[in-house]
Amino acid sequence: MTGTGVLDAINHKRGGGQLSAGQIEAAVHGYLTDAVPDYQMAALLMAIACRGMTSSETVALTQTLAGPTRLRLGDERFVADKHSTGGVGDKTTLVLAPLLAAVGVPVAKMSGRGLEHAGGTIDKLEAITGLRLPGTAAQMRAALAATGFAITGQTGDLAPGDGALYRLRDVTGTVESIPLIAASIMSKKIAAGASALVLDVKTGSGALTASPDDALHLAKLMVDIGTGAGLPTRAVVSAMDQPLGHAVGNALEVAEAIAALRGEPVPGLVPLTLHLAGLLAQQAWPNRSPEDIHQELTGTLHDGRAFTALRRWVAHHGGDTTQIDHPDRLPQAARIETVTAPVGGWIARIDAATLGRTCQLLGAGRTRLDQPINHAVGLRLRIGVGRQIGAGAPLLDLHLPADADADHITGQVLAAITVTDTAVPQPPLILHTL
Amino acid sequence: MTGTGVLDAINHKRGGGQLSAGQIEAAVHGYLTDAVPDYQMAALLMAIACRGMTSSETVALTQTLAGPTRLRLGDERFVADKHSTGGVGDKTTLVLAPLLAAVGVPVAKMSGRGLEHAGGTIDKLEAITGLRLPGTAAQMRAALAATGFAITGQTGDLAPGDGALYRLRDVTGTVESIPLIAASIMSKKIAAGASALVLDVKTGSGALTASPDDALHLAKLMVDIGTGAGLPTRAVVSAMDQPLGHAVGNALEVAEAIAALRGEPVPGLVPLTLHLAGLLAQQAWPNRSPEDIHQELTGTLHDGRAFTALRRWVAHHGGDTTQIDHPDRLPQAARIETVTAPVGGWIARIDAATLGRTCQLLGAGRTRLDQPINHAVGLRLRIGVGRQIGAGAPLLDLHLPADADADHITGQVLAAITVTDTAVPQPPLILHTL
Repeated sequence: MTGTGVLDAINHKRGGGQLSAGQIEAAVHGYLTDAVPDYQMAALLMAIACRGMTSSETVALTQTLAGPTRLRLGDERFVADKHSTGGVGDKTTLVLAPLLAAVGVPVAKMSGRGLEHAGGTIDKLEAITGLRLPGTAAQMRAALAATGFAITGQTGDLAPGDGALYRLRDVTGTVESIPLIAASIMSKKIAAGASALVLDVKTGSGALTASPDDALHLAKLMVDIGTGAGLPTRAVVSAMDQPLGHAVGNALEVAEAIAALRGEPVPGLVPLTLHLAGLLAQQAWPNRSPEDIHQELTGTLHDGRAFTALRRWVAHHGGDTTQIDHPDRLPQAARIETVTAPVGGWIARIDAATLGRTCQLLGAGRTRLDQPINHAVGLRLRIGVGRQIGAGAPLLDLHLPADADADHITGQVLAAITVTDTAVPQPPLILHTL
Repeated sequence: MTGTGVLDAINHKRGGGQLSAGQIEAAVHGYLTDAVPDYQMAALLMAIACRGMTSSETVALTQTLAGPTRLRLGDERFVADKHSTGGVGDKTTLVLAPLLAAVGVPVAKMSGRGLEHAGGTIDKLEAITGLRLPGTAAQMRAALAATGFAITGQTGDLAPGDGALYRLRDVTGTVESIPLIAASIMSKKIAAGASALVLDVKTGSGALTASPDDALHLAKLMVDIGTGAGLPTRAVVSAMDQPLGHAVGNALEVAEAIAALRGEPVPGLVPLTLHLAGLLAQQAWPNRSPEDIHQELTGTLHDGRAFTALRRWVAHHGGDTTQIDHPDRLPQAARIETVTAPVGGWIARIDAATLGRTCQLLGAGRTRLDQPINHAVGLRLRIGVGRQIGAGAPLLDLHLPADADADHITGQVLAAITVTDTAVPQPPLILHTL
């Protein structure tokens, strides 16, 4: 596409018009081949961010960003993929992947590092001493064959259009756009070439899409895109107002995932994981009933098979399995301080974004790209929204680095927790299933 | 402003927020000093084009684009300035400037070349053999002192921020934005530093702002900006559905302006020019009544003083005054073809944009920047909207180059003219005066 062709497309989109698949493909291809300069692509992205895109425009953009290459890790076998839009305390992948592997449903997924206040699966797994994740497709295939599941970081070769556009969006204020988010996520999933996909779209203060309407719109759009591209896709919209489970911070979250894999009823984490895993298993076993599948998955958490699947996977990747057997051998914080309730009442709010940001600043996440992570720090909640507590009751434990200002951090986390004097119902966890 | 600072501004504007004067100034200054890359400025301009700007944001942008320099051609004397947003057959400046000069109101203005289907004053004046317009401020001052008015092309030194932003807008699909148009026009007018300004904002098919509401909004915004910057500003919203006057094309328009300056009642052109000139004269003579001023201006068209002012001005710039005395000595087209009405009835529509584009393609305007202009070609209407005609009546004369396909062009212009079998009222010319 020449500068003039893309200029027509920009003007058309600025005026609220719809772009053709050819215009979208020409603009992205032109950008990747330097025929379209970055200032024109920036203008087009902003026009899209302001005016939106129809479902068919978003499908066309996704296909263009995905490119022609498909990473078919399962070859002819069924392979499941899962994606979360990111949240605080979201260690679902750490439970879902070994659980499905234990029942014979292979899982292969690319995961990310932490982003702003939300942690990343890769950072969490690196809390396990010695563990090295696959860096190549061959290593992923080997892990899949040996352990039933494979997890890797983002690879630059897949969906090159998405990589180029994402870098530009990051510096032009065009990240927060539902069609651009949908196209970016789904282009990578389509390029990864799984047999079935489940999406966990978070909504609430700790989510990328705070509004439930936006989250539902994003979920529907991604299901449409996946289905249209021949990738059977289910989606869940789930609450991310309070952290998922109790633990926030890398080693603390690995320990909580191990507890769930040993059959402990971790609130939020276990029901959401069972729901997401069930949707994938239904794709693998179309002839079995959802109730039957749910029963098998629940049983697999309790009979040790899910735990064993994780242990085998950690061993395959060189990780220290004694830390899986004894999670208290995972990296431990220099000190632990318990924060107590100044007044009694009902817990009305536990602001996930604030708690996530507090843990990030403690060292559980990065504020600069080149920063090392402190895998030990974070917090463990002892409460959830809707719980009644007395004055002085423990609210959470802070896992702090040696030099932390405990009083200051206590003030921050207390500001994130609201206690009221009237009863508060437990909020729903799963808002929609598509 | 660093990349991070402008990124906050971009995100804020994308979300529909209002920018502070400091943010706007920092973004433009950063762009001019290469601290803000073009892709970020492109994203900011598109966010502004999509989300709009408040009056106070637009004032801040205008002041920033104007920069600190003021070209005060009149020194301590009153100098009037006039601007039209551009239309087909708009030769108002060619009548207004000598008319005001003849009654002792100095006029100094920068004019443009033709843009798309709309002609430009500079192109029209260059139809006069030998005429050379001033290129420097000193030459403009000399012309003003000797002849009472001065016209020049755009100079790059004034409003440098506007120059830089305009070039980027042109290649990023961000031209059509009311606040960006208002800031661009008014930054140059403020930098030119006149004592009073009148704006002619066109609306209709042949105008930059087709919708009357947009035109009124643009006019109000520019009056607010001018007044806020200490430049007394009046504005008119005038119709640009049919061409202004009868002539379209450079030499033909000069000849029509001469006719008006000799007291001929050219429809559209004379009443609009008298209205605009009256608004400026009221600023120069605050103690005289509008009726008194109108009478003096009308008399000046009829007693030869306005014509003499143009003649003196052409002579000062080396132009051939015999062409002013005898307009048939202006460049003449190779041939003239008269287009007649296929059916009788009332003229309901004469589409200015189509006629303007036809003349542009004949050579009266450019389709590429490096193209020479044929000053002789164009057309002269013999009718106006609301006129009743019989079948076979002459509609217009085409002034064609030797190689023109007269049949094809006749078809084009006939498609621009609608004849109905019920009476059509004469449309209003001046819709608003602010």
